[in-house]
Amino acid sequence: MKGPTIALLGLGTVGSAVARRLLDPSPQLVARLGGRPRLKWVLVRNPYKSRSVRVDPDVLTTDAQRVLTDPEVDVAIELIGGVQPALRYVRHFLAAGRHVITANKALLAEALVELVGLARRTGAELAFEGAVAGGVPIIRPLLSCLAANRIDRLRAVLNGTCNYVLTLVEEGADLDTAVRAAQEAGYAEADPSDDLSGWDAARKLAILAMLVGGKPVDWKAIPCKGIDDPGFREVLNGPVQDGDKARWRLVASADWSGDKPRLAVRPERLSAGDPLLQARGVENIIVIEADPVGEVRFAGPGAGGDATASAVLGDLVALWRGERLPLNFEEEALGGLPSARLAVTGD
Amino acid sequence: MKGPTIALLGLGTVGSAVARRLLDPSPQLVARLGGRPRLKWVLVRNPYKSRSVRVDPDVLTTDAQRVLTDPEVDVAIELIGGVQPALRYVRHFLAAGRHVITANKALLAEALVELVGLARRTGAELAFEGAVAGGVPIIRPLLSCLAANRIDRLRAVLNGTCNYVLTLVEEGADLDTAVRAAQEAGYAEADPSDDLSGWDAARKLAILAMLVGGKPVDWKAIPCKGIDDPGFREVLNGPVQDGDKARWRLVASADWSGDKPRLAVRPERLSAGDPLLQARGVENIIVIEADPVGEVRFAGPGAGGDATASAVLGDLVALWRGERLPLNFEEEALGGLPSARLAVTGD
Repeated sequence: MKGPTIALLGLGTVGSAVARRLLDPSPQLVARLGGRPRLKWVLVRNPYKSRSVRVDPDVLTTDAQRVLTDPEVDVAIELIGGVQPALRYVRHFLAAGRHVITANKALLAEALVELVGLARRTGAELAFEGAVAGGVPIIRPLLSCLAANRIDRLRAVLNGTCNYVLTLVEEGADLDTAVRAAQEAGYAEADPSDDLSGWDAARKLAILAMLVGGKPVDWKAIPCKGIDDPGFREVLNGPVQDGDKARWRLVASADWSGDKPRLAVRPERLSAGDPLLQARGVENIIVIEADPVGEVRFAGPGAGGDATASAVLGDLVALWRGERLPLNFEEEALGGLPSARLAVTGD
Repeated sequence: MKGPTIALLGLGTVGSAVARRLLDPSPQLVARLGGRPRLKWVLVRNPYKSRSVRVDPDVLTTDAQRVLTDPEVDVAIELIGGVQPALRYVRHFLAAGRHVITANKALLAEALVELVGLARRTGAELAFEGAVAGGVPIIRPLLSCLAANRIDRLRAVLNGTCNYVLTLVEEGADLDTAVRAAQEAGYAEADPSDDLSGWDAARKLAILAMLVGGKPVDWKAIPCKGIDDPGFREVLNGPVQDGDKARWRLVASADWSGDKPRLAVRPERLSAGDPLLQARGVENIIVIEADPVGEVRFAGPGAGGDATASAVLGDLVALWRGERLPLNFEEEALGGLPSARLAVTGD
C-alpha cells in the first residue's frame, strides 16, 4: 500500500495545520496510511500572502482547473470555508469519483444530501468529521457506535466563540468587552457576526439533524436567536442582580420525540449541574439522549487548527483504509436531486 | 440483504437486554441490519431459571456443542462473562470464520491479541465496544476518529460501582454503608470484590492500552489499588476533617509519553474542576490527551443492560454492514501466538 496523493484546497488556520502534518507526517500517520502522504497541490487565492507553513512553490497554486483535473489526486481536502467556490470544487471531485474530506459546515449545511448522493453514484467517499465540533469525535460515533439507538434528543454547545464570550460574561465582563476579548485571544473573527448570531451553530445542528433523520434539513428554517439578539443583550447589559449573568450558554437543541423534529438555537440560562456547562471556554459538547443507551456526552476542542486537523487527518486515515461512513440517508432523498447534472456543468 | 442469524451466549443482565431487542427489534435496528435479526440460539447453563425475557424453548439451550457447530450462525454474541468457558466458545467461532461480538472484559484482558490474530487469519470480525465503559462509545472513536493522533495520556473512571460508592462517601456515608447501598441499588454484585479491588478497572485499562499500543499488555502487572485497600479505608474511615472525603475517585490512568507506557489504577483525591468528576454516580468517563487534538472526553452510562446492549447492537449493525474495526496490532504480536492450534483443540 502507498500513501494518498492529496490536493489541499485552502490554507487558512485549519489548512495550515493540516498542511504542516502532511508535509512532516508523524510516524503514526505514515504507518496508518500505509505510506507517506504526498501533498501535491495546495490551492490558494493569493500565493504571496505570508503563512505559518512553508509550502513549496511548485505545490502552491492558484490554478483551480489544474488541481481539479489532475488524475493523480486521490483525495481532495477542502478547507476553504463558505459555500462557493468550495461547492463547485467538491462537486467536481466527487463527480470524478475522487474522495473528498471537508470541515466546511457552511457547505454541508447547504448541500450535504446532494453531495452524499453524488458520492454514492460515483463510488467516492465524502468524510466530514471536522465540520461539527472540531476535534470532538461525533459523526462516526453517532453513525456507527449509536447505530442501534433511536436518537430522542440532542443538546449541544456547538460554537466555541459564544461559549468563550459567555464564560467571560459569567466572570463579570459586559457583552461587548467579552467579544473584544475573544477577538484579541484569536477566538473570534474580525467580523464575529456569524458566530454571535447563532447561525454557525444552526448550520452544525442542521448537519447533525440530517445525519440523525436521514433526510434534508433546511438550516435557514431553524428558529435561531444568537447572543447578539437585542432582547438578550438588554437582559445581560441591564441592571442585573448578582449571579444573573451566570450559566447563560448558546444552546443548540434537537428533539425527535414528537411527530416532527424540533430544532432550535438560542441562549439559555442553564441550571447548575447541567452537563452543557462541562464545555469550558472555547470547548464544544454534545449531549445525546437515546434508547437504549441513555445519555452520552462528547466534549473537547470545538475549533482551532490543530483540533480540526485531528478530525480531518482521522478522516484521511479512515477513508484510505477503506472505512466508509455509514450514512443512513433515504434513497429518495439522495435520488431526486440534480447534483449529477450540476456537477457536470460545474455551477 | 437479510438480517443476521445470531447465537447469544449468556442471558444475564446484558444478555437479557440484548435478547429482548433482538426478539422485538426496533424499526431502526431492522432497517440498519437490512432485515430482521434471527435469534436462533440462546445458550444458558440453567434453562429453568426465571428470567426477565421470554425466550422460546426451542431457542433456549444448554447444548454448547450444537450451538458452536451450527453452520447457520452468522454472529455469536458472547455475554457469559469470565474467562472460561467464554474463551473456548469464542475461539471456536472465530476459528470457524464466524463473527463474534463480546462485552467481556475479563476475556479480552486475558486474550484480546490472541483473538484478534485468530480472527484475522480466518477473516472473521471481533467487535467489543461494550467491553469498556458500557454504552459510552470509546473503542471506535479511539481507533478511527483519533487515528491520526499520538495518544499521550488517558485518565478514566472505568468502574461505575466504585464511582457510585465514592459519591455516597462524598455525601457523608462511611465506606461499608456506601457499598451496601450500592448493592441494594443493584449497582454492586453480591460479591463486589472485583469492582472494589480495582481489578475490573485494570482489565478495562489493559484493553484500552493494548489498542493504543498495538501490543499485548499484562493486566495482572498493572499497579492496582482499589477502594478496599486497607490504607485507603483507614483514611476514609478515620477521624476526618470536613471535606476530606470529597472528590476521591478510583482513577485508571495511562501515560505513553515516556519510554514505556505507565499504567495504574488507584484512588485519587481530585482537584475541584477535574473533568473526571463529570462522571456522576455510576457513570464512566474517559479523558484522552492526544496530539494534535488536545483533550477530548467521552462520558455516559458505564454499565447496565440497556447501555451495554446499545454497544453490542451497535457492533452488530457495524459488522453486518461490513465496517471493520481498524485495529493497529503489530503483525509480530498477532503472529507468534498459539491461538490457531488452541482453537482447533478447543482448550
